[in-house]
This record gives sequence, structure tokens and C-alpha cells, in this order.
Amino acid sequence: MLVWKLIIRGLLMDFIISSEGIKNKNIGIVCGPDTLSGVRKIASKVAGDIKAVFGYEPQVAESPRFKSPICVGITGDKLIRDIGIDTSDIDGKREVYKLEVTGNALVITGSDKRGAIYGLFKLSEMLGVSPFIEWLDVKPPKMSTFKIPSGYCMVSKEPSVKYRGFFINDEWPAFGNFCMHNFGGFNAKMYEHVFELLLRLKGNYLWPAMWAEIFPEDGPGLANAELADELGVVMGMSHHEPCLRQGEEYKYLRGPKSIYGDAWNFLKNEKGITRFWEDGLKRSGRFENVITVGMRGEADTAIMGKDATLKDNIDLLRKVLKTQNQLIRKYVNPDLDSVPRMLALYKEVEPYFYGDEKTPGLMGDPELNNVTLMLCDDNFGNLRTVPTPAMRKHKGGYGMYYHFDYHGLPVSFEWFNTSGLTKTWEQMTTAYDFGIRELWIVNVGDIFSNEYPLSFFLDLAYDFDRWGTTNPDAATEYTKLIVDRIFGSNVSKSDRHAICDMLQGYTRITTARRTEAMNDRVYNAFNYNETFDLLDEIDSLMKKCNRMREKLEGNTEFAFYEFLWLPLTAGLNVQRMWLLTTLNHAFADLGSTYAMTLADMIKECIAFDRRIVDELHKIHGGKWYGMGLSEHIGFNNWCEEECKYPVICTLEPANKERLITIVKGSCQSTEGKFWTGRVLLLDQFLDPSCDEASLFLSTACGKKVKYSVESPCKGLSFSSMEGTVKPYDLYELKVKIDRKAIKRGDSTEFCIHSADGYTVVKVPFNRASSFKGEKVCHWTGRKDYGEDLIKANIFDRSLKKEAFGMNYISIPADGYSRCFSSPSSASFRLIRDYSRGMDAVKAYPQEEVFGTKNAPYLEYRINVPSAGRYDVTLYTNPSNPFGREPRILVGYSINGGNIKKINMIPEGFAVGDGNPYWSQGVLDNVRKTTFTVELNEGLNTLNIHAVNPNLVLQKIVICEEGAEVPDSYLGPKPTYRT
Amino acid sequence: MLVWKLIIRGLLMDFIISSEGIKNKNIGIVCGPDTLSGVRKIASKVAGDIKAVFGYEPQVAESPRFKSPICVGITGDKLIRDIGIDTSDIDGKREVYKLEVTGNALVITGSDKRGAIYGLFKLSEMLGVSPFIEWLDVKPPKMSTFKIPSGYCMVSKEPSVKYRGFFINDEWPAFGNFCMHNFGGFNAKMYEHVFELLLRLKGNYLWPAMWAEIFPEDGPGLANAELADELGVVMGMSHHEPCLRQGEEYKYLRGPKSIYGDAWNFLKNEKGITRFWEDGLKRSGRFENVITVGMRGEADTAIMGKDATLKDNIDLLRKVLKTQNQLIRKYVNPDLDSVPRMLALYKEVEPYFYGDEKTPGLMGDPELNNVTLMLCDDNFGNLRTVPTPAMRKHKGGYGMYYHFDYHGLPVSFEWFNTSGLTKTWEQMTTAYDFGIRELWIVNVGDIFSNEYPLSFFLDLAYDFDRWGTTNPDAATEYTKLIVDRIFGSNVSKSDRHAICDMLQGYTRITTARRTEAMNDRVYNAFNYNETFDLLDEIDSLMKKCNRMREKLEGNTEFAFYEFLWLPLTAGLNVQRMWLLTTLNHAFADLGSTYAMTLADMIKECIAFDRRIVDELHKIHGGKWYGMGLSEHIGFNNWCEEECKYPVICTLEPANKERLITIVKGSCQSTEGKFWTGRVLLLDQFLDPSCDEASLFLSTACGKKVKYSVESPCKGLSFSSMEGTVKPYDLYELKVKIDRKAIKRGDSTEFCIHSADGYTVVKVPFNRASSFKGEKVCHWTGRKDYGEDLIKANIFDRSLKKEAFGMNYISIPADGYSRCFSSPSSASFRLIRDYSRGMDAVKAYPQEEVFGTKNAPYLEYRINVPSAGRYDVTLYTNPSNPFGREPRILVGYSINGGNIKKINMIPEGFAVGDGNPYWSQGVLDNVRKTTFTVELNEGLNTLNIHAVNPNLVLQKIVICEEGAEVPDSYLGPKPTYRT
Repeated sequence: MLVWKLIIRGLLMDFIISSEGIKNKNIGIVCGPDTLSGVRKIASKVAGDIKAVFGYEPQVAESPRFKSPICVGITGDKLIRDIGIDTSDIDGKREVYKLEVTGNALVITGSDKRGAIYGLFKLSEMLGVSPFIEWLDVKPPKMSTFKIPSGYCMVSKEPSVKYRGFFINDEWPAFGNFCMHNFGGFNAKMYEHVFELLLRLKGNYLWPAMWAEIFPEDGPGLANAELADELGVVMGMSHHEPCLRQGEEYKYLRGPKSIYGDAWNFLKNEKGITRFWEDGLKRSGRFENVITVGMRGEADTAIMGKDATLKDNIDLLRKVLKTQNQLIRKYVNPDLDSVPRMLALYKEVEPYFYGDEKTPGLMGDPELNNVTLMLCDDNFGNLRTVPTPAMRKHKGGYGMYYHFDYHGLPVSFEWFNTSGLTKTWEQMTTAYDFGIRELWIVNVGDIFSNEYPLSFFLDLAYDFDRWGTTNPDAATEYTKLIVDRIFGSNVSKSDRHAICDMLQGYTRITTARRTEAMNDRVYNAFNYNETFDLLDEIDSLMKKCNRMREKLEGNTEFAFYEFLWLPLTAGLNVQRMWLLTTLNHAFADLGSTYAMTLADMIKECIAFDRRIVDELHKIHGGKWYGMGLSEHIGFNNWCEEECKYPVICTLEPANKERLITIVKGSCQSTEGKFWTGRVLLLDQFLDPSCDEASLFLSTACGKKVKYSVESPCKGLSFSSMEGTVKPYDLYELKVKIDRKAIKRGDSTEFCIHSADGYTVVKVPFNRASSFKGEKVCHWTGRKDYGEDLIKANIFDRSLKKEAFGMNYISIPADGYSRCFSSPSSASFRLIRDYSRGMDAVKAYPQEEVFGTKNAPYLEYRINVPSAGRYDVTLYTNPSNPFGREPRILVGYSINGGNIKKINMIPEGFAVGDGNPYWSQGVLDNVRKTTFTVELNEGLNTLNIHAVNPNLVLQKIVICEEGAEVPDSYLGPKPTYRT
Repeated sequence: MLVWKLIIRGLLMDFIISSEGIKNKNIGIVCGPDTLSGVRKIASKVAGDIKAVFGYEPQVAESPRFKSPICVGITGDKLIRDIGIDTSDIDGKREVYKLEVTGNALVITGSDKRGAIYGLFKLSEMLGVSPFIEWLDVKPPKMSTFKIPSGYCMVSKEPSVKYRGFFINDEWPAFGNFCMHNFGGFNAKMYEHVFELLLRLKGNYLWPAMWAEIFPEDGPGLANAELADELGVVMGMSHHEPCLRQGEEYKYLRGPKSIYGDAWNFLKNEKGITRFWEDGLKRSGRFENVITVGMRGEADTAIMGKDATLKDNIDLLRKVLKTQNQLIRKYVNPDLDSVPRMLALYKEVEPYFYGDEKTPGLMGDPELNNVTLMLCDDNFGNLRTVPTPAMRKHKGGYGMYYHFDYHGLPVSFEWFNTSGLTKTWEQMTTAYDFGIRELWIVNVGDIFSNEYPLSFFLDLAYDFDRWGTTNPDAATEYTKLIVDRIFGSNVSKSDRHAICDMLQGYTRITTARRTEAMNDRVYNAFNYNETFDLLDEIDSLMKKCNRMREKLEGNTEFAFYEFLWLPLTAGLNVQRMWLLTTLNHAFADLGSTYAMTLADMIKECIAFDRRIVDELHKIHGGKWYGMGLSEHIGFNNWCEEECKYPVICTLEPANKERLITIVKGSCQSTEGKFWTGRVLLLDQFLDPSCDEASLFLSTACGKKVKYSVESPCKGLSFSSMEGTVKPYDLYELKVKIDRKAIKRGDSTEFCIHSADGYTVVKVPFNRASSFKGEKVCHWTGRKDYGEDLIKANIFDRSLKKEAFGMNYISIPADGYSRCFSSPSSASFRLIRDYSRGMDAVKAYPQEEVFGTKNAPYLEYRINVPSAGRYDVTLYTNPSNPFGREPRILVGYSINGGNIKKINMIPEGFAVGDGNPYWSQGVLDNVRKTTFTVELNEGLNTLNIHAVNPNLVLQKIVICEEGAEVPDSYLGPKPTYRT
């Protein structure tokens, strides 16, 4: 004891970790005699981290023989007391640590076990060690010396959310095969990796895999549970596994002669079920757990049959809860309030909690006192009902069960990561602001590939001050951080920047449509060029990603492969395959020989998909064997049943020389034959800022086709005036406009001649300043834009009659001219890169319900060619009602008129399996709400007023009442503005 | 002169034609000095016919030097007078001949030129010469001797219809290239063949090709017109080519300096147009013509613009008619009434004829006095408005323009023959019965391949007594006749019978859906097995046809090729290709590897289509070169523009071992996986007369799949209890039921096991006599069937809930239990093999409008499981309203209740381009009319009462109100009856 004092006393020196120091055993990690074994184990892992950085591994010892010891312990430990650390600033706090250079020592003091562990890992982090060092084999940059200045002292904050964790789920075939191959089962050898990952990510809570596994038995025996407890991992079980028993257990324990009976039915088999729970609590109650209470049916289904009334169900649950609480008092702790318990308000349990007018729900039931009520998202990342201000007072607090992986209706998502950070940020900050702060758990499927959003989720839960509501750039900032943490100086700054772009780039695409739900009928082949544009984006991302991978070496290359290359490439290759299929079908439908080229490209994608899986299963000696086993292409049911590869279309080329001309960005096409006399419309030049547009040329026949352009207009120029289109090819004929060279009255019509075809193309256009010296616009984001200005050829009525041509105005969410805050400073805020490649606007405080007066609003200014009725369509996130009422109201007003409120939740909407509105919303990740307004000729003001939470607006599209805007997945691109 | 008397006087002997006699110049054809040159030319052709039969060609001479002369002439000819033929029975008649053995001579006397010609060809017919001897190179059976008994005398009837002819139309590229290749143009060399064909078929009237040709100029010069006149062919021009000038003429004669002006516009260019007509009449007026009057726009379009009123148009036409009549009086014949003239009431001219309430139409205009009013079908073989009893008195009478070929909306039909005889019979007898008897003309496109319906059309027009309304078996009888005429004893009787079956077989299929309009979306891939059944029928026909062709030799083989093999094979190969495509898409959609086998079969069809055309173009030294040049596959417009070959679907086989099970005859399929748990329903055994049904098995994967059947029911047996399904294959698993072996209460459910799939199949069934000793039935054709009998498991409600299972009753038209005639003996009659492979019923007299009382009706008896509202759908021919009102009424009554009348013409229907109801009707060749009735439980009586003409009923389908009967092209097959 005295020795310690000697060492640290009187010295005022920097703490230096160096290769030399470690090699010479001057530096080591010191535990005390009573240091918890879990802390010691983590200390050893940190020793390993230090070795990874400095090349030498410090010893972990009890004796103070090092010149520069790294001492670790928790408040009250002998070692900490001996050193004389002042723990008053961490005493009694949750999971807090103090990191202090004192004398010759670096002392890490935890307020509790996890505090000490987080403190140890904090040191690793300071040394540039990634939390994925073990899980993804990420090697940190080498250092020879690292200095912590004398007097350094930092005290961590208490984590924002009490229980922060993830759920290994839907683990077959991928994670399951991975476990069997690498560990021989779901045992403690495997779980040690998972626990370490969880702790390094600052989580503390885990739901184990449970499809076919029993955590408390597979260790073998209790080894899993004991290890978790040792390392400070709080175990939960999934929302439908009460009293520390896994669903699978009952399956093999039940039977006619079983002490547990033979029915998962509390009415018919109360005794057996009670005994089953009792034995679970006896076995595992001594470990740190959050005990699930309540009861659902077997395999995640409703507990009672369809004929049972609400009251039957509620009465049963009350009885179940009472029984369970009695058991917990008896076998875990007579002080029930000190036992963390959780009731999941999942699927059918939600109505039991709320009840209805006739039947009081479980809300307020004394058996639920101090039980954490776990709410959930809709399995697709959109929160369901959140607590009202009154409910937030519930003593047990609230939890949130979120999903980065889902196995269920309408279509599962399990194939590598398809979750981005921004929407997670928006939804989980909403949860937090609504008071859901006790427990956050996220379904991460096989874990692997979901490290990016998982890491964010846990850091957000750990440090809401930093990443939460007040930081609208959290997603981008965090992306930068995680890339720095993984690659650090192993990768140049500019390459790290590129990696960030790729991370955000691929998740932008996979969140717009998840892999399994992607097919050839999602994006429109031609309209707005969305399929071609997305293909370009994918090609660019995949190429960049390949180049980067080729450039990197060793473990850096491998980490890049795991963290980015694989999820990006495997995901985008599937996206690409389907987009090519969309085009293949569309070109085949036109009879274009380009369909056959696309067919070959699709086949390459399929072959590549197989190569990706093969590589994954072999790489690093089979480290990730199994992780590519999930079916992931062309789901026709919610699950893999009847899934299929793309149907590839080919056709026999036509007999005669025939040229097909398509207006790029639209579905218009023709072979330019006499009898049909179809005329094409190139309408891009209606936008005065656009001076280049294109036609696609391809052949219907197997021979080359010659074409020539006949254009009398001097203001139009072409990428070529004549040429040959080869079969199986797609040729882009570019058209440029020089508006100044066009005199009033000049015809801009041109013609493409080929064989016996002549394709007439009409080219309407607007001049840059065609009205009163002001630019023509569809809408304006300029607040100083005059009221009296604009009347222009915005919709061309004669063209519109022919059912094509630009017949809409499209405004992005950030296209408002002014943003008005409420007196209380409530205001809309912009969320960049929210989803589907678009920004969004949302009113804050996001938990506030606004009255008509004093609500914040946005002013959009739109310019229409004539007075009349117009349809306004809002593109929003498919948010669910925040309360029990099926309602998300939004207000709008026109030209300063009264505010009208409309409900964005369609009639018949319900969150859940089989509901068509909800299903479409979560698949498409968008909701469209249309209302009709009267507009004046020229400039109008459309104000959008906040009313209810959960309005996340991304786009506004306006067209004449009843007009059909060309179909697409992403909706019309923004039209021209000034 | 005296010599003749000597020869024939006093002798009473048979007239014998023999090879020997011809060789020895004892037999020859004798003309008189004033015999018309046209008759002489035909006499030479008949001499050729005789050579074809007997091996030696008789001389055609003026001198009576033959022992057995065949004398030919017309009433009043010197030769006929000299012989002393009594012509009193033919004098003054139209186109009549007398064929008489008198003395040593056979004398053919015509009442006029065409009478003599038809008489000559009658002799050929008697000798077994086909009317196609020249056109199709049909060689007659050889004979050495043919005897006409002494005293033989036959006098032909006057033809039923005055002008009987066809229109060579839509002649490019096929007929046009054929002409250029074989004749160097549309000249007299070519037309001689056409005239001969026309006359041999007993026609007398022709509209020449006119797309790019000028009949009166291409002869060269007037040679075409002169030859027609010489041979007695009455020339018309198409409905929009007035005053003997072809549309093409104006095109090249017009111009700024032309005497005809430069506008096809009677308002702006009256002088030029009048001059144009005048010169036409001057040139061609001296020939025998039916002069078209009236005026349409250029190239078969409306004459005035869209903005012209009805009155503008009518006034203009009155003026046009007046001018034309004046010109005809001046340049053709001052006795206008003796000049055959025709006004076509085609397309927009029809409303001008009728006018409206405000504007009197052309009807009754004195300028139309004695002008034949030509009505028309809807271009697809369905009559349009027919004359009312009052209108039938119009002095000029009525004509009918019918189509076996059409180039226009909604989809052209030009590729070989797609017309059958029965519907033509039904429609043209209707025309005749409605008083349309002056002129029948049919558009035969390229002629070639349409010989079958053309020949029937002209014979029907020539001899309505034999083939018309009173002969309901005309189609079958005529088919036998034409086959006998072509093949005679060159082919055995049983083979001729087989040829008849093939003729009716292929036209049954091509009339159900014409070639160009056929595609993969016509027939339903699975429902009612209609696609598979039709494929079987086609395969059987094509095989029989090939075998027959292989068996025949020489010219018989060639005639068979032309007349049957080519249209059958070329047509059915395309049908087959599309049916395979329907299946290819459906199997690809299911992810079945059988799709790839189908893909290969489609490619074979495409290659075969090309081989067929190649052979056609080379056969017989290029005799038919050009006739295969029309595009004919996959029309996407009404014309060939953007037509395309089938889009062929393939896909990558699935990764896992997966078996796909389909219930044959339905769209039900499953892979039998746990999660979706889809159950199949084999419902054929609900029909007590059915004891075999099938499942189709195929693989989703590229590997073999093993399966085994688990069936606890002793009453079910299977074609195999286990086996292996190969990839790319389709395997039929047959299920037989032995009802007696099934005890009450036995489950008939069985299961097919494979890999991790288990497909559960439910097998509901009815016993043969499961209710009160009577057979279960859906409907009954037995009039003695008791009222009190039946109540059975007809619809299985529990199965219906799952949206499949037999949920309808389908009764064929002839399934009535009784037929009630009116007191006037009006009655329904059965028309066998009417269209779409179905019989039909129609009320006769077919021109009669029935009141509610005393109308004939049919009684159908239907058996439903419960009282309630049921939808009754009538499948009828898509007939057009017979009058100006948009109306075809039909009456129905239930269980003896009041008769309700409904209109089968849907609201918004109009005959003509672009009308969706009409277009769908002519493409599908069916109209469906649904009404709702209240039925009692058990047996009900549904009476169908005649009201308006044009009800041609084929099928009645009954289901519960609002229930959806599984989709199909042909409709549900008849359900079970007793």
C-alpha cells in the first residue's frame, strides 16, 4: 500500500507509452487484488490493443513493479483507494470513468464495472484503436510513443440511455453457419467476440440469438451467461421470451410427461408454465439481466386465438404479470423495483396496453410499476406510437426496439447493411425527445455488415448530447468519425473522405429500396432518367470502391473489404442487376436490340453476385464463412420462398431496317413511321437553365441503321448530324440549344431520317429572360422575388393535350423562400440527405403538437400559368401516427388564406402485416399525400404549417387537378427555379 | 347451216367425251361466226381443262367438222339458232345457261355472255375440274371417257346476288411483289389469271388493286379494262374511287399547272375535279362497270376536315352526286337508270346518308335513285347497320362490302387466311335476309390463301337457295364440296374427310384470334388449361397436315400445300409460338426452369416461320414469290409498325432444391414451403363425371428434384407415388379418384414431399349420385329433370373464400332443356361450330324484330346451392346494332317471372376506329353481357327470349354476384351437367 504512494507522490510528469517502455517492462497494466475479473479480462484486451499499436504487449499484473503503470479499478477497489484517487466526481454514477495522469501512473477508475471497462477502451480509442479491432481485424496505425500530459484528468458522462444494445436475430443461415464453422456453436467462445464488440461500442445490453439456440445452455451450460455477467453485459431476451427462458427451451422441454406440461398456454397449463418460468429465474436470475415479462404466443405470434376478445387477452396478461412478478420476488430479488424488467408493446400487445373505451388496458397496472415499457418501430425504422406527456411519467421508463434487419412482412431485409444514418438519427432522436431513454435495442441480424449503423446507434444512445437532436449534421460527422476510427492514418485524409462518400453513397441507394424488395418494377425505366442516373451513380461508386480496394494493402485492405467494399458491392450489384432488368424489359418491350446487351449485363451481375459470396466464404481462411448464405434476390414473398433471379428478356431482331428513337428522360419513343405518325417532344429546354438534352437511338433489327438529322433551326446543334447505329447498342444523340440564335417565330422542330422512318421531334423552349426581363421559373426560393412578375410558357397546353411534356412543378423540401419560427422559437429545420437521395424539413421541437396559431411554417412560392385548381402532392417519410389516433396532421395555406389541416394518414391505414398502405410505405420509404388548391395566375404562396409531430417533408409536386404526372419511383426531379 | 341440222337431226345418242375421241379429232369445241371473243377465250380454257382430264386438247373451231361437237354460244347467236336450241327458258335471264345433249352435240347456250361462260365452266366442273385448276395449278383426276346421257338438259338458275366479286387489296408487299416477279406489273397478263379465277368461281365483279396501281393504265394502257370487258368481268373501283378513276391517278395528274388542279377538294377545285371525273368516264365508260359515285378524302379518309358540320358534308355530297350523274348521263348513257352505280356507305359516309334530327341525310335524294347503296361490315366480318323494311324498297338495292382481309384499326389481318365459313354464312345470310342482294364484294387481300372462304362467299352469292339461310350445315357441306372439287379422286375419301377436318380445324383457331393480333397476353396460361389444350390441338393439326403432305405427290401435293398446308401451318405456327410465349412468361414468372425449354421451342417456331416463307418464295420456280413478305408477328399498332417477335424470358435457376407444383387447369401453384403454407385445391372431382385430374411438377432449380406422394386416402391413386423431376422439364402427375373406395368422413387431402417442401393438396369431390339418388349437376339439359331434386355441394363456400375453386356454372349455348317456337314458327336454331370453337344459337327469321309476346325462347335450367343474387354473363358474337339505334336487346326471365329486356350494346359503344368496346370485341370475337338475377336454392329456370336481330349466343356463365370467375380468353369450359 505504501509503495503506491511512493510511486505517485511528488511527481509531476507526462504519461508516456512507448514501444521501448513496453518492451522494457517499464509500462504495464496494474490491477488490484480485488479488481473484478471482467475488468481484468478487458485489461488484457487493452494490453492487446497496445501491442497492436506499439508492437509490444504490456503485462497485466497486480504488483506495482512498472515505472509507468496503467492502473485500473473501480471506486472502492483497494488499488484505487491505495492510489488515493478522488472518486467523489464519479461515485454513485452509472458507467462512468475517470482517466487521470497522476504521478507516474495513468489511472482508470470506473464508477462501476462497466465504467472501468469503458475507461479501459477509452484508452484504446485514444491510442487510435478502432472498436472493430477484434471483430473486423482492424489493425490500428503503428506508433512508437504516445503522450498523455501530466495533470490530464477526464471524467466521462453518464450514458444518455440506460440499456443500449443489440439483438442477434434471423441468424440462419448466415450467422448460424458462421458460428458453427468458426466456433462449433453459439458458445462462449463466440459470444466473447460479441460481448467485446458490444462493450467497445459502449453498449451494455444484448439479446442473444434465439431461432434455434438457447443462450443459457449453449455456453456450454451456463458459460455464456457467466461470461456475460463477468464482462458486465446485461442480458435480455427477446420481447417474447419471459423470465429468462428462451422460446426454444419450451420446445424441447414440453411433453405429455414433462413437468412443464405440453402447452404454451397459461390458461390451460398455468402450472407447467409457471414452473417453467420459475426454473428459468432460478437458473439465471443471479446474473445481470433485464427480465422480459408478459407473454406472447410461440414463435413470435399472438398469444390467444382470433376469437379471444380484447378483455380476454388483457385479463390473461394481468394474470401472467402478477405470476411473473411473484416469481421474480421469490427467486431474484424481493425488492422488485430494483430488478430491471421489460414488457414489449410489440404487435398485438400494443392494443392490450392501451385498451379501448370499454376495456381498460394494462397502462397503469400496478404490476407494471417500474417495468420498462418497450415500444418499437414498425420493423422498418419508423417509430410507432410514442408516449404522451402523461405517459412519460411512468416510473419504469420506456424502451425502443429498432430494426437494421427484419425477417417478416411485407419483405424481409437481411442481406448486408441497408440502413443509413440520417433517418436513424431522425427517428431515434424523436424517440429520445419523446422520453424513450431507458432502453434502446436494435435488431442487427447477423451483426456483420451492420457495423456502420450499429456503431452510430450505440454512440447516439451513449452520448445524446453530442450526436442527438442538437446536432443536425450528426450523420455526416459520425461517418467521418467512424472512418477515422477504423482507418486513421492507415489511409490518407482524402481517401478517408472518399470512404465517407461511399458509405453515404451506398446507403443512400440501399435505403431507398432494400435489397430483397428490389426488383425490375421499382424504378421507371425512362421517366426522369431515374434508372439510367442511378445506374451511373452505382457504376461510379462500385468503380471507386474497387479502385480503393486495389490501392489498399494488408489488414487495411481487409478492413475496407469488410466494412465497405462488401456491403457496398454486394448491395449495389443487386441494385444494378435489377435496374438493368428494368431496362432490359423496357427495351425488349420496345423491340430494341439493346435489350440483348442488357441481358448479358444482367447475367454478369448474377455471376458477380456468386463470386462475391464465394470470396466472402473463403477470405481470411473462412473467417466469415456462412455470411453470404442468405437468399437475397427477387423476393416474391416476405421470405425467400419462391424468390427468383431476374427474368431476362430477349427477342429475335426485326426483319427490316428500323431505328428506335427515345427521348431521354421520358417514355416517348417511336420508329418514325408514316402510319402512326407519332411526334416526339423534347421538353427539357422549357427550363431556361438547361441547354443540353438527348435522344437515345437504338435498332429494332440486327443490322446497322444509318440516320441523318434534318434541322432547319440554327439555334439547335447536334452531337452528330448523321451516323450509324449498331445493333445491340444504345447511342446518345445530344442536342444543344443556343437560344440567342433562335429568332421569334423560328421553328425548332427537327427530324431524324432513317430507312423509311422519319422521326419528328418538337422542341419547345423558354428563353432565359422571356418575361419582363425576369427569368421564367416554375417556383422560386428567393424571398425578394416580385409578386408581379411572372407569366410564362410553363405548361404548354397544346403539348399537354398529347399527354406528355413537362406538366408539373417539382420543389425540393429546401426550396422554401422563407422559414417562419414560432414565438417560442419552434422552427422547421433542414435535415440533409434524409432518404431516397433527398433532403427533408421537419419542425422542432419534434415532440411538440402545434396549435394553428404560432406554429412554425415554411413559405413556398410557385408560379402557374393560369388560375385554376391544382393538385399539390407532398412527398414525406412514411411516418406512423405518433399517438393512438390514426393521424398526422399538416397545415397549408394559399396566398395568406386560412390554414387548412389535412391528415396524411390515409383511411384504412394501420401499422402491421398485410396493411397495403403501410406495406407500400415501408417498401417505397415514402408517403404521398395530395390535396387540391385554388391558385391564381402567376406567383402564389403555399405555406406549409407544422401541426403534428412526424411530418418529414421531402418534396412538393404540383400539377393541374387530375393531371397525371409521369410515373416514377423517386418522383419528378426539381423543375426550374430562380 | 344445213349441215348442222343434218348432224343433230334424228339422232338419239349419249354424248361421250373420250381421250380417243379428242385425239382423233372427233370431239371439238365449236363456236359460231358471231360468238363473242370472250366466250371463245373461255372455250379455249375449257379445251385446256379437257386436255387436263383426257390427255388431249380438243380443237376450238368454227366449222362443224367434229363427229361430237361441243357447241357454245348465247341466245341469238347464229350457231345456237342454227342448231335450233329452244332458248325460251333462258331468254332475258341474267347469267343463265342451258346445257343440253341434242343429237350428236353437247350445246352450251348462255342467256348472255356470262351465262355462256358459266355454262362452259359447268362442263369443266362436270369433268371434275376444280375452279382452281389455273390459279392453284390443281390437276383434275384423269379420265378416258365421260358420258352425258342423251336427252340431258339442264338450265341453270339466275344467280341470287347480281354483282358478286372480290377486291384485291392491301396488296403490298405480298401480292405486289408476286405481280412484279411473275408478270412485271399489274397488267393484263396477270389480270387474266384473276378474271379466270373470278369467273370459274361464278363471280362477275372485281375491284382491282389500287394502293399504288391504276387499273385502266397498267394493262399496259387500257388492256386490263378491255380484257375484263371481253371476258365479261364487271369492273368496279373501290368505295372511294368515283367515276372510274383510281385514287392513285389524281396523285400523279395533279399539280399547279394540271388541268385537274392541285386539290382533291370539290369545294376549292370543283372545275379540276369535275374534269378529272369527266376524263375517267370518257376513257372507261364504254366498258361494263359499276360506277362508284360520291366522294371521300384521299387515301380512304374523311372528305372534309374535323370542323365541318354534318350539313356541310351532306350538302357537299349532294352537289358531288349531281355533278357525277350529269357526267355519267353525258359520257356513259343518257339513261342513267340503266347505268350500274354504287355509293358506299362506308365509315363517315354512313351518318351522311342517315342525317340526324336537324339535317336530313342523303336517304331518298333523287340523285341516288337507282344507285346501289353499298353497306359494309365493320371490317372484321360483323355487319353494320342493315336496311329497315322501308329502306329495302330503295330502287337501286343494297350491296355489302365484306372483309377476309383488313388493313386498319384495331389490328390488321393480312397474313394468310384467318376466316372460317360459319360466321361468314351467318353474317351474309343475315345480309341477304335483310334485302342486301344487289352486290356482294369481299376484300380478299392478296387472294392467295383466301380461296377457301372466297369460294364459299361467291357460291353463296350465286346460289343462295342451296347454301343460304335454309341450310344450317352449309359451312360443313361446302367444305366437303370444295375439297372434293380440288382433290376429287386424286385423294382417298377418308383423306378428303381429314382435309375437311383440317380446314375447319385451323380456321376455328385462326378466327378465334387472328394472326397479327395474337400475342402472349391473349390466352390465359393456366386457367381451364386453355393454352395447353389449344397447343395440343395445334400440334395434332400440324402433325396430321405434315403427314398428309408427305403422303401426297406431284400436283396433288402442291395443291394441298397451297390450299391447306401453307395457311394451316403458317397460321398455326404463329399461334403456337405465342401460346408457348404465354407459357414461357408464366413459367418464368413462377421461376420454373421449364421456361427455358419453352424458350427453345419459341425459337424453333420463329425459325420455322422463316423456313415456311423461304419455301413459299422458292416453290414451283417462284410461282408465289412475294406472298410471304407481309410482317405478321406481334403487332403493336394496327399496322406492322413496331411489330416484334415474342419477348422470350429466361432466368437463372434457383440455388436450392425446389419443386414447383401447379394444379393443372388453374393458376394455383406453390413450392410448398412452411412460411407461406399455401394449400392447393384440386377441384375437378366436384364434377361427378370426372375421375382424373393432374398436377404439373417442375423445378425452380437446375438440379433434379425428388418427390414422393403421401396419401392416406384409398380412393385416390397416382400415376406414380415417387419420382424425380428433371430441371427444364414439365412432369404431369395424374390423380385418379375411385369414389366408391372413399368412406364418408375420409380425408382426401394428400401431400407431395420434396427437399424441404411439402405441398398440401385438398381434393373436394362429389359422388356420382350424392343427393336423393339423383346426379349432382350444375345445370341440366334434360327437360324431364325434376324440380324438387337437387341441392348439392356445387360451390364449396369454404374453398371459395380462398379465392379459388369452381365457383361458377358454365352452360354452352346448346345446353338448353327446351326450345319454344313462336306461333308464327319463329324459333331459335343451332349453328354448329360458329366461332371460338363453340356452337351458337340464333332466332330465325333472323331479320325479324320480336315483341315480348310470341317471341321464341330457350329454357336453361340451372342448379344453385343457395338462394341469392347471381351474375349471369352471356357470351355472344360481337354483333353490331342492326339499326341506327345503339341497341341489341335480349330478353330473359327467371322461373317464369316477367321478361326483362337488356341491351347488349354497352354505353359508349360505336363501330369504328378507336372505340374501345368495338375494338375489343372484334379482336376477341366475343361480347360479354352481364346481368344480375335472384335465384332460388336448387333448380331454377332461366329463359332467354329473342327480341332484336343479331343475338348470337354461345355460352352462359353464372356466378354469385360480384364473384370473379378465373380469367381466360375462351371463358370457362362447360361445368357438369346431367
